[in-house]
Amino acid sequence: MSVHDNASILVGADITRKTTAIRVVSTMKALTFRSGKLALTDEPKPSDMSEALVRVTMSGICNTDVEIIRGYSGFEGIIGHEFVGIVESSPDGSMDGKRVVGEINAGCGECRLCQAGDPRHCISRSVLGIVSRNGCHSEYLSLPVRNLVEVPEGIPDSRAVFAEPLAAAIAVSERIEIVDGDRIAVVGDGKLGILCAATLGRLSESTVLVGKHESKMAAASQLGIRTILLDDLADSNQIFDVVVEASGSQSGFDTAMRLVRPRGAIVLKSTFQGTPTWEAWRVVVDEISVIGSRCGRLETALRFMTATGIALESLVTETISLDDGVRAISRAQEKDVLKILLDRR
Amino acid sequence: MSVHDNASILVGADITRKTTAIRVVSTMKALTFRSGKLALTDEPKPSDMSEALVRVTMSGICNTDVEIIRGYSGFEGIIGHEFVGIVESSPDGSMDGKRVVGEINAGCGECRLCQAGDPRHCISRSVLGIVSRNGCHSEYLSLPVRNLVEVPEGIPDSRAVFAEPLAAAIAVSERIEIVDGDRIAVVGDGKLGILCAATLGRLSESTVLVGKHESKMAAASQLGIRTILLDDLADSNQIFDVVVEASGSQSGFDTAMRLVRPRGAIVLKSTFQGTPTWEAWRVVVDEISVIGSRCGRLETALRFMTATGIALESLVTETISLDDGVRAISRAQEKDVLKILLDRR
Repeated sequence: MSVHDNASILVGADITRKTTAIRVVSTMKALTFRSGKLALTDEPKPSDMSEALVRVTMSGICNTDVEIIRGYSGFEGIIGHEFVGIVESSPDGSMDGKRVVGEINAGCGECRLCQAGDPRHCISRSVLGIVSRNGCHSEYLSLPVRNLVEVPEGIPDSRAVFAEPLAAAIAVSERIEIVDGDRIAVVGDGKLGILCAATLGRLSESTVLVGKHESKMAAASQLGIRTILLDDLADSNQIFDVVVEASGSQSGFDTAMRLVRPRGAIVLKSTFQGTPTWEAWRVVVDEISVIGSRCGRLETALRFMTATGIALESLVTETISLDDGVRAISRAQEKDVLKILLDRR
Repeated sequence: MSVHDNASILVGADITRKTTAIRVVSTMKALTFRSGKLALTDEPKPSDMSEALVRVTMSGICNTDVEIIRGYSGFEGIIGHEFVGIVESSPDGSMDGKRVVGEINAGCGECRLCQAGDPRHCISRSVLGIVSRNGCHSEYLSLPVRNLVEVPEGIPDSRAVFAEPLAAAIAVSERIEIVDGDRIAVVGDGKLGILCAATLGRLSESTVLVGKHESKMAAASQLGIRTILLDDLADSNQIFDVVVEASGSQSGFDTAMRLVRPRGAIVLKSTFQGTPTWEAWRVVVDEISVIGSRCGRLETALRFMTATGIALESLVTETISLDDGVRAISRAQEKDVLKILLDRR
């Protein structure tokens, strides 16, 4: 018996064919993390009539999903926050039938930040699949209508699903001024690192992706990114103006500290579990700036896709059915794997 | 026999009165740290004819001196980098007899940074009493003429000796834009924290010094600084736009992380030994900027003294003779002690 079947057992042994039929309508399959266990489960279909109901067509597995399963953030519920889908219903019907991606931060709608149209730091926010809100590795999700952004026709689902991480990559330049000629290193040849290098490379041609994995570096090269193996920078200390840490590891941060020049900047892009150590004295003596960067704006990401035609779907290693979601999460952690997508077959 | 006398013993047992007389002329008393031991020793008087020779009249003990004795930086030699003195000789005679303070970073003079008049990040720099250059807790020191800045007449020695740490405090605003109305907290009621609060308070009136020591807070209040006890901020999380960490401790940094608002900035002002831990994920999620800040410009500090008439000498807890330098360093580490000065009686 698969874990997925547990939910129908829980309904009770005296269930009739008729009530089972109703259950099929009001529940959905979802990839959930609860009590330390990842499983495909039956979950109630979202029913908050004040929000839009979105039928998810495709979702992407992010390293944050993996970190959540390792205990980062203490989240329990449906995981996942990168998606594209079709609006099934919205409170005033205005978005019905539209193909959308979604801003993952759902703000209170009333604070100064939300009123200015930016819920990303609303103190009362929930975050899709990360904080107090079910995510998108499921058949349906719900989000406030104001969080949804329509996807232009020319962008296929397998590319549109990158809107959220691409926006996060672009957001680096929201936190730090980049001018052409800046020597930029992106440390970490994973998905986010590649997206950062792809976007920063358009702001300064002296941008390079620093990594260890030849297959990932090859995928990056296909997107026009300049790459260099970490080993080839063994003797290159303090030569970059900006270093983006996108590996989410202690060693990645240590590398960033080694590569950044005095008065240069390290952009911390990856969330990760635990409390790493750092040489705070070097931040002082070399007057380094360490800049945290999280979410971007989906509209900007979609405009970037349209303007550049960048074939982000080339970063997809495998597309797996949501039914096989547990295996997909394992697959996402394997060496040489880039993006794993979940579709709904 | 005092440690100070060791040097004459080392000259040899067959020393004559005459050679002893020569020794008196060419050596000087100095506070040195070597092989893990702090001592008052006889040292050669500086003899580099390409630099200015300065007779030190007063020097100040900085926490960095204490950190060096604890093993930070691996420095060995004469410690100390805050001073005021009289130029005894300079290569072209132009500075002879002038009362000066000194930029502590001695650059190569040839790199791009040095050519632009700013040796603070010259990669080949030595640093007075900190890196590859004897310091100022001695009777004489030498520095390149270009490092010396004349002290205006109206500033007494006991105030001028604060030029270096005051410049470091002012340098916060060289690293981060401050506008009036910014809510600024300076964490740490030591000497550097007080100087930071005194200078930042003139850029934004919403500046407050956060500390634990009532006597130090009282001294800060006398300089017109608004103070608040750390305990009174126990429930005040994420309310400051800028937090300056001037305690040089893990708990001070943790406090800074708690007090800073999302997208706010922490300025790291104190160097300290070791590799502390930090919640890097919070830097990412709340998009905090952690900005290292070290040395400032002495000219700016002297202008600040002249413009404000700020009575920095009120921060002096005790003035002790260089002869008692070892005790002075102990005294500087006692509770409720602010600045300890060394004079040459």
